[in-house]
Amino acid sequence: MTSLTDTIARIHPPSARIAEATQHLLDGKTKPRGSLGRLEQLACQIAAIRGTTAPRPLVKAIVVMGADHGVAADGVSAYPPAVTRQMMLNFARGGAAINVLARCAGARVVVVDLGVAEPLPDEPAIRAYRIGPGTRNFAHGPAMTRGEATAALEAGVALAEELAHAGVTLLGTGEMGIGNTTAASALTAVLTGAAPEAVTGRGTGIDDAGLAHKLAVIRRAIAVNQPDAGDPLDVLGKLGGFEIAGLAGLILGGAAAGVPIVVDGFICGAAALVAARLAPAVTGYLVCAHRSAELGHHHVLAALGLAPLLQLELRLGEGTGAALAMPLVDAALAILADMATFASAGVSDRGA
Amino acid sequence: MTSLTDTIARIHPPSARIAEATQHLLDGKTKPRGSLGRLEQLACQIAAIRGTTAPRPLVKAIVVMGADHGVAADGVSAYPPAVTRQMMLNFARGGAAINVLARCAGARVVVVDLGVAEPLPDEPAIRAYRIGPGTRNFAHGPAMTRGEATAALEAGVALAEELAHAGVTLLGTGEMGIGNTTAASALTAVLTGAAPEAVTGRGTGIDDAGLAHKLAVIRRAIAVNQPDAGDPLDVLGKLGGFEIAGLAGLILGGAAAGVPIVVDGFICGAAALVAARLAPAVTGYLVCAHRSAELGHHHVLAALGLAPLLQLELRLGEGTGAALAMPLVDAALAILADMATFASAGVSDRGA
Repeated sequence: MTSLTDTIARIHPPSARIAEATQHLLDGKTKPRGSLGRLEQLACQIAAIRGTTAPRPLVKAIVVMGADHGVAADGVSAYPPAVTRQMMLNFARGGAAINVLARCAGARVVVVDLGVAEPLPDEPAIRAYRIGPGTRNFAHGPAMTRGEATAALEAGVALAEELAHAGVTLLGTGEMGIGNTTAASALTAVLTGAAPEAVTGRGTGIDDAGLAHKLAVIRRAIAVNQPDAGDPLDVLGKLGGFEIAGLAGLILGGAAAGVPIVVDGFICGAAALVAARLAPAVTGYLVCAHRSAELGHHHVLAALGLAPLLQLELRLGEGTGAALAMPLVDAALAILADMATFASAGVSDRGA
Repeated sequence: MTSLTDTIARIHPPSARIAEATQHLLDGKTKPRGSLGRLEQLACQIAAIRGTTAPRPLVKAIVVMGADHGVAADGVSAYPPAVTRQMMLNFARGGAAINVLARCAGARVVVVDLGVAEPLPDEPAIRAYRIGPGTRNFAHGPAMTRGEATAALEAGVALAEELAHAGVTLLGTGEMGIGNTTAASALTAVLTGAAPEAVTGRGTGIDDAGLAHKLAVIRRAIAVNQPDAGDPLDVLGKLGGFEIAGLAGLILGGAAAGVPIVVDGFICGAAALVAARLAPAVTGYLVCAHRSAELGHHHVLAALGLAPLLQLELRLGEGTGAALAMPLVDAALAILADMATFASAGVSDRGA
């Protein structure tokens, strides 16, 4: 397994030269220059990451990491903590939204247990990288130790390396963990400097009283733990979750292996923000799938400098937005590969 | 062929009862209620249009209608008028962006000549419904007669009926016609009451001087023709294009046949606006693919009461946005058909 430090050292910005050469190829296609907007930028980005102006069709995997959160005991979610485990089984058996949408996108789903409270049965569809039986309640002290945070990050790195080695060329991120919007809001507040109330939303659907309580818990967590905003590992350990740390590692490992990563909504965005604070060049490897309905997400995207492809008022998680965005990435590469040029089609270019 | 009046009389709003029953089914799926946002609304809309809570996977066709515009002689486009014909041949031979993106979406492309200046060669891939060799220059008088406008509308209706009869259950709209953003801007200004400068953009990419000239042409066209904003056929005839009229007819015919229509960008939006002024219930059958980069598009969408699925800064036309949005429609129906329920998956619902 590659150490976290080595992985971070291997992440360099994608090739600007290849991005430029790709745009030049797109400019020769039978359409006004730039008229496919974001799709053209996407083709250039993927080409630059893959290191070629003729990337092959993408082999896609969506990694759904799940773990439990000590803070869920404080009643911050509309759903009971047992749902984390139930949904992980639902993922393994193919019945959840992410399974359906990944099938639509031609992506496989990789379900990873980073620390669900009660261990999952031995199902071949679930990969176990358990750090512990869920984090501790960060309203009273750190969610995890620095060592646990590093172990979860390195589990994500290892999985990204394994998938890249197995031929995966497009990763998507997904998550499951009752209580994890609370962790993501706390992380976002500290890492972006935003006020907790600006980044705390209703998650799976709590009411006004629930939202006020969730906000109080987040404020207490920050006051109790005093995370050092300049030390991303400190913030992650004190306020994160095992699945969030694992996803940050997956993102770092994907970037180090030259694999673009489609980042789902708010929680995955918080993981990407942690990754970007550890290795700023990682942002060049990220495709922002969508802007979620969750309040804090736009702060995350602004901090990452990413613009969403979709804005569909999604607030489910699981990687569903990533799955929905993947066909756009395929489409961008198909344009690059398959469209006629002005010359080949006998079409007059402007001013001709 | 069904007359326009009969077609309009057959358009009733999609079933609110089936939309509601579909939402109830979605609420039983393993996800927080409403958490798939726009995707859930889309599933309900398609179910309501198709008249069943269990619609079958969609059979998709994107109809690309092309015609020339007399006003193109006034130099309102960055491209020469000959490009309309060249691009129609490119569509027929499979090399254009719409061909590539329709293949990605699993949709067939139907290329229709409503009146390209010089007739196209006899290619099996091109359907001819020619109204004439392009419209007249509306800067000097009506683009077409009322009879020509009706004939183009009825051609669209007939094609929609034929495709529905052949099993197509999802239509997409696309267009080609050098000069047609000028027509769409003029139509939009008159039908929405917006000032011409608020709905006139750069089309395929004209510069500041070109934009000022285009705007002057549009103002002159409105002054010369004095269209009656309360009579959509009058506005269409005086300021429209054959392909815009054909698309308005396709939209009406699709709705009358119970087929949802994915509407591409600004020009198709203007066609949809004409259709909606002829038959207000048609809006229930429309899926707005994207919000284009063209200035006037948001006025069109506001007038139609439609929200775009995508916002990718596209400004190509051809139906490319419709093709990119179709996988979202497929995904919405897959969620409805394939997701597990709380009961079947053994997952606790909220408050359980």
